Amino acid sequence: MLTIALDAMGGDHAPKAEVEGAIRAARQLGVRVVLVGQEEVVRHELRQHEHAGLPIEIHHASEVITMEDSAAKAMRTKRDSSIRVACRLVREGKAHGIVSAGNTGAVMATSKMVQGMVRGVERPALASAFPTLKGTPAVMVDVGANVDCSPQMLAQFALMGEVYSRVIFHTKNPRVGLLSIGEEEHKGNDLTKLVTPLLKSLPINFIGNVEGRDVYTGHADVIVCDGFVGNVALKVSEGIVDVIKQMLKESLDASITRKIGAALARNAFSDFKRRMDYSEYGGAPLLGVKGGTIICHGRSNANAIKNAIRVAAEFAGGGINQRIEQELAVWHESARPARASTAE
Amino acid sequence: MLTIALDAMGGDHAPKAEVEGAIRAARQLGVRVVLVGQEEVVRHELRQHEHAGLPIEIHHASEVITMEDSAAKAMRTKRDSSIRVACRLVREGKAHGIVSAGNTGAVMATSKMVQGMVRGVERPALASAFPTLKGTPAVMVDVGANVDCSPQMLAQFALMGEVYSRVIFHTKNPRVGLLSIGEEEHKGNDLTKLVTPLLKSLPINFIGNVEGRDVYTGHADVIVCDGFVGNVALKVSEGIVDVIKQMLKESLDASITRKIGAALARNAFSDFKRRMDYSEYGGAPLLGVKGGTIICHGRSNANAIKNAIRVAAEFAGGGINQRIEQELAVWHESARPARASTAE
Repeated sequence: MLTIALDAMGGDHAPKAEVEGAIRAARQLGVRVVLVGQEEVVRHELRQHEHAGLPIEIHHASEVITMEDSAAKAMRTKRDSSIRVACRLVREGKAHGIVSAGNTGAVMATSKMVQGMVRGVERPALASAFPTLKGTPAVMVDVGANVDCSPQMLAQFALMGEVYSRVIFHTKNPRVGLLSIGEEEHKGNDLTKLVTPLLKSLPINFIGNVEGRDVYTGHADVIVCDGFVGNVALKVSEGIVDVIKQMLKESLDASITRKIGAALARNAFSDFKRRMDYSEYGGAPLLGVKGGTIICHGRSNANAIKNAIRVAAEFAGGGINQRIEQELAVWHESARPARASTAE
Repeated sequence: MLTIALDAMGGDHAPKAEVEGAIRAARQLGVRVVLVGQEEVVRHELRQHEHAGLPIEIHHASEVITMEDSAAKAMRTKRDSSIRVACRLVREGKAHGIVSAGNTGAVMATSKMVQGMVRGVERPALASAFPTLKGTPAVMVDVGANVDCSPQMLAQFALMGEVYSRVIFHTKNPRVGLLSIGEEEHKGNDLTKLVTPLLKSLPINFIGNVEGRDVYTGHADVIVCDGFVGNVALKVSEGIVDVIKQMLKESLDASITRKIGAALARNAFSDFKRRMDYSEYGGAPLLGVKGGTIICHGRSNANAIKNAIRVAAEFAGGGINQRIEQELAVWHESARPARASTAE
């Protein structure tokens, strides 16, 4: 049975959403969950729920990193935080992966330091799944772990994203696109022009540049970009979904006839909202660190936490890190004469 | 009476949308429109419409730049293109601004070369208006004219966008934000960190970093970024609006009850689509070139063309370029000892 360490103190609704999500995961997915956090607080919440016989444990961690803490300072000063203790469980082999809805910067930095990096990977990258018209989500890497990237880093993001798409979304021969401002190879900035030949040299199905509008059409299964651009794309998307919901609500509230229409159309809106709901995809994996680290929105509900635990288990069970390590080794080997300067 | 040169051969629906848009503008806005393009073709289209007595002329240009043409090559080889002839009319003082739904790259490059730059501006920048929950659109600069930017360029974008917001959207003391990946000043990439002190030194209401999710909330009136990031933000937005329309349509078509609901709610969707419709904002101005250049979507309809002509007239009538020139001069003067290396 796979064991996932869950940061019980992380999200805006912690530990309630975390405990409920853990119970659902343990019951529905057959995963063992270790709730990491202040024992009294977590035990109190756990008592509110029926969980007899489920594979759920509590592991004490005395400190809590808040959303306001700076990641660097929290790492130095809060050595017994729930995030750090959870990462330590992975390093010690007591858990196969971690899930946290806590301070993203702190989770990324702590995972990298405590769990360590997959061999051959320079920097961890945050991936996010975007819903598409074709059904299969598109995986964007990086959406915020690295703001200033080298071409080598983007090439590694491409390879990691490709493995992730194959294992988690069962995509056959994923189409990997480079996010740019035009489809033609010459349209882009200094970084995209430098990374294009590297992407061509990778053992992946590289389809060239994709534009912002292609993110949601399903034109590509994996979309590679630096973490600054990816973060803007992700947050613009979240923002526009919120605004469209609000605008639709205002429009539909404007008259009685429309209200009746809205009532009849309600199921359609539910469908639609579910398709746009990021929590269905189970959080954003931090690719490139040992074990699997899945980072959830601070506002994650129990369902999002459960799905993140499912992804963490699939991540570990699917051997994603081993595959990344192997493919990077093969690529580095084949490209060695041409790329002697690559960090390894 | 203000005169606007309209590239009659530019868009996907040229010259039909252009001619119809010109007639609406001439009739409703009291603007003189010079249709620039192949005389026979334009005259044939114009004959299909009632336009007696309206201030509309045709100015012949023998060549047409297509969407597939490379901007650089078209500039060299098509010296009598409708875009180039329209820009020339502005340079010669025969028109106060131009509107084109043609090849964006060619319009930008030709405007810059033929019309020339506003004194003190290093590079022209493309601005786009985003709808917000607060009603007043947010102006994003740059959305694609410059992919690799210096801090000085972004500071100039901020100042140009601020003047544009004041004149076109009547915003008082526009709030100017720097697009980044977190609200705190230290969250960003190398470029945002370098540009922050410059933005603080400008005579504008700089509110610090804004995130992608703030674009649509109306948290800022002007959003500054490099053209690569801005282009991704714009195209992701367009993409997600298309996808949401499609998903809503699929959801609403799924049952009879829903279809009835959809029929009753139809007016609400029309409202909503209009609020999200970029054509209402009349195209994207290229800030920093002499005269005013307004660039429309290739798929612009007559209404979008008419609105772009309105913006071009307001641009010229509002003295935007004079204000930009004055404010840049004052800023350069006040900052000269500290910024001796700035190009001017």
